[in-house]
Amino acid sequence: MSKKSENPVCLTVAELAQRLGCPFEGDGEKIIRGVASLESAGEGDLVFLAHPKFRPLFEQAEASAAIVSLEEKQGKIPYLRSKTPNLTFLKAIRIFFQPYLPESGIHPKAVVAESAKIGKDVSVGAYSVVGKEVEIGDGTIIFPHVDIYPYAKIGTGCILHSQVTVREGCILGNRVFLQNGAVIGADGFGYARKGDGTHVKIPQMGTVILEDDVEVGANTTIDKAAMDKTIIRRGTKIDNLVQIAHSVEIGENTIVISQAGIAGSSKIGKNVIIAGQAGIPDHVQIGDNSIIAAQAGVIGSLPAGSKVAGSPHMKNKEYWRMWANVKKIPELIKEIKKLKSK
Amino acid sequence: MSKKSENPVCLTVAELAQRLGCPFEGDGEKIIRGVASLESAGEGDLVFLAHPKFRPLFEQAEASAAIVSLEEKQGKIPYLRSKTPNLTFLKAIRIFFQPYLPESGIHPKAVVAESAKIGKDVSVGAYSVVGKEVEIGDGTIIFPHVDIYPYAKIGTGCILHSQVTVREGCILGNRVFLQNGAVIGADGFGYARKGDGTHVKIPQMGTVILEDDVEVGANTTIDKAAMDKTIIRRGTKIDNLVQIAHSVEIGENTIVISQAGIAGSSKIGKNVIIAGQAGIPDHVQIGDNSIIAAQAGVIGSLPAGSKVAGSPHMKNKEYWRMWANVKKIPELIKEIKKLKSK
Amino acid sequence: MSKKSENPVCLTVAELAQRLGCPFEGDGEKIIRGVASLESAGEGDLVFLAHPKFRPLFEQAEASAAIVSLEEKQGKIPYLRSKTPNLTFLKAIRIFFQPYLPESGIHPKAVVAESAKIGKDVSVGAYSVVGKEVEIGDGTIIFPHVDIYPYAKIGTGCILHSQVTVREGCILGNRVFLQNGAVIGADGFGYARKGDGTHVKIPQMGTVILEDDVEVGANTTIDKAAMDKTIIRRGTKIDNLVQIAHSVEIGENTIVISQAGIAGSSKIGKNVIIAGQAGIPDHVQIGDNSIIAAQAGVIGSLPAGSKVAGSPHMKNKEYWRMWANVKKIPELIKEIKKLKSK
Repeated sequence: MSKKSENPVCLTVAELAQRLGCPFEGDGEKIIRGVASLESAGEGDLVFLAHPKFRPLFEQAEASAAIVSLEEKQGKIPYLRSKTPNLTFLKAIRIFFQPYLPESGIHPKAVVAESAKIGKDVSVGAYSVVGKEVEIGDGTIIFPHVDIYPYAKIGTGCILHSQVTVREGCILGNRVFLQNGAVIGADGFGYARKGDGTHVKIPQMGTVILEDDVEVGANTTIDKAAMDKTIIRRGTKIDNLVQIAHSVEIGENTIVISQAGIAGSSKIGKNVIIAGQAGIPDHVQIGDNSIIAAQAGVIGSLPAGSKVAGSPHMKNKEYWRMWANVKKIPELIKEIKKLKSK
Repeated sequence: MSKKSENPVCLTVAELAQRLGCPFEGDGEKIIRGVASLESAGEGDLVFLAHPKFRPLFEQAEASAAIVSLEEKQGKIPYLRSKTPNLTFLKAIRIFFQPYLPESGIHPKAVVAESAKIGKDVSVGAYSVVGKEVEIGDGTIIFPHVDIYPYAKIGTGCILHSQVTVREGCILGNRVFLQNGAVIGADGFGYARKGDGTHVKIPQMGTVILEDDVEVGANTTIDKAAMDKTIIRRGTKIDNLVQIAHSVEIGENTIVISQAGIAGSSKIGKNVIIAGQAGIPDHVQIGDNSIIAAQAGVIGSLPAGSKVAGSPHMKNKEYWRMWANVKKIPELIKEIKKLKSK
Repeated sequence: MSKKSENPVCLTVAELAQRLGCPFEGDGEKIIRGVASLESAGEGDLVFLAHPKFRPLFEQAEASAAIVSLEEKQGKIPYLRSKTPNLTFLKAIRIFFQPYLPESGIHPKAVVAESAKIGKDVSVGAYSVVGKEVEIGDGTIIFPHVDIYPYAKIGTGCILHSQVTVREGCILGNRVFLQNGAVIGADGFGYARKGDGTHVKIPQMGTVILEDDVEVGANTTIDKAAMDKTIIRRGTKIDNLVQIAHSVEIGENTIVISQAGIAGSSKIGKNVIIAGQAGIPDHVQIGDNSIIAAQAGVIGSLPAGSKVAGSPHMKNKEYWRMWANVKKIPELIKEIKKLKSK
């Protein structure tokens, strides 16, 4: 565990089952002190069976209790039963594990502008800088070394880890989590080319809006819009080292995996999955519920429900059929030779 | 707008036309208070028609005036006419919009070495660290949380945003802009392999030189040379999350788009465009005016004026012809079957 | 050189040969003051001939002495002879060049928790933050603007450059070097999807372990494990802007080049090379001594000694044969036409 818990939780199987709202079977007096993976579980640990393919590991796990599906046959250790073992296990994690968070209060070595409005139970870490007219909502935690430029607005219950920057005028909703080094609102990459070949910077006047429950990974960059706003809608989760260019719009509950990039002004729908290292060009629209495979290079707009792979992108099925076809070329060469010899 | 302007600018159409050096037509007394996109413009806003394809949007825009080409037919709102509407609009942006910049002066909570030479009207933000014998030219702005290692030299009129690092001995020209989190001069990735399989670090002795008017995006990394210098020449613009390895040289006015990577010792010409997520290997030369498509994987040197795409790269035309050919394979299979059956 | 050396070293060729343990020939009294590349060498510089292909450059170099192989014919300048000129030159670099490092001591403007245990001769730079119960071994150097979260343990002789974060409970061995902006231990990207399409964050309980002699590049991100640990084994070197997801394990002496990404729970062997911009999916195993080409998109586990390229990956040979075959398609089309016309 990443934290030496100061108030370790200790529950019997029966108490735990009650807190999770689950039926259980087996020894209800067994003591549970934590959750663990199948590989590392020991005495006092709770595990779960996520998928039948993990059964070999599961059967060797030295755990004291397990969360299983309603259908699972009875085992040697106490079982807590759930229709959704993964979500119930998630609840159990929250009972036993609290991530490290600093205490609330403004560190004496933070610089907070007089005109900033700071809510209740806010933590501002050592050496963080909060600019003028910034607003920070109740319960938000700003770790050390965070830079919040003037006029930014940050909602309630947010967590901003060290080395994060939120640029001037950017707006974060509630429960927005920014991992270390994320940059929200740097200047978009906009230049006008002059006759002599030099590039003149187009001032980037816009902002970034991250709606409620957005999470942004470490060292990810989300640029401010050229004129209006770059907007990431409610519940969207963005991994590490992702690039989101100026004036992009991403719908609700979309997933953007590490090192993917989205170029300027493109509009991504809701419930989309953009896998790792994929690229979306500028000024396109990706429809709701689309899935873009890892390393895909999208070359145009996609209707809702698209599943594409490859660079340039193809529909998933066409992509794999194409590779199968390519592998047939040597055979074709032989066939043609045969035909010619006749 | 990302900043609540403290001195909002307010001009009549006639005054604005004069400042932009443009003829105008329509109501010269109309008041203009800002610039806006076609989508968001309202009363008091100036817009521009960049390209005929935006005419539908343009005609619905609720702006008070517009910059248009010399040929454009007269409209309902006042028109300012220009041979280069985009460059004239850029001038207009500069009249109405000032990006947020901190006041000059050294913040009492910055650490500046005694031996550092700081020019006039320099701003050094809270918690920034300026090492010994560093030189900073007039009018340069160092935001908070910037780290300038000893012996670095920074020209006049530069802007270094928060969380930037400039390593020991690196040299920045004038008007160099570094977005947040950019790392200039980290150690290049150089190791010698010993007989036992371990890697010995080759000390990286060189520096990075960023010439005048270079801009570097957020969280981009430009490594110091192994022995001499990594050099980015005048006017080159580099986007976010780009990797530029040790001893690379990039010519003037080149554009490197987000998440592209250039491996060690390669030499890129001037006026080159390297699109997003493209990769350039080590020790190659890319000629002037070349265009490398997004996600291209270059595998060797390229003469001036090359246009390549794909991984491994091909000439643009060959690349698209190749994909057309690949799509013909199923047809070829059918044809061969027919021929065989005869 | 990136540092104005305060104690410049000055040796005769004979003295240098003795320190390097090399035979030499030519003027043993010549003065050597530094090492240089073939391109930039001048009076007083030592160079080396790495490979016969550099002979034209070598012969024009204006150096005062050179390290060459045992077989090299005698030249005009003094030669020091070595079986491994590159490793001997590396030794020479270490004699003449010392990278910039701050003095030891805790800067008065660092914040170090009372419960932190700090070894001897440790340097903690201005504005760095060392959390509670952190341990830092002897001789370790923490540059300014580094954030070490509580419960982290850092070994002896490590170097952590500015803007680095080491998150709660992460463990670094001895001689671990972190370049600027590296993030060790940010939350892994783990969510459970609920029936309504929203994503619930899975608390990331694990840590990161970087064993002895690991080096991590600028702005690279290595996420903490979901439950156990992400582990990078002894001697592995990781370049800039690399993504290593939660619960990944990398063996000894592996090389991961810039912008490569490794998805969750994958296990990479020892002595592997993962080239730039390559992607490894989640839950796969890459065997020892494998080589993954630049931009490769691996789609499954690989046995030891694999050499793969392309996306989706193929064996190296198959990959290049495949491209050769694809180029034959136009010819096949012609052949079929001919056959048909008969």
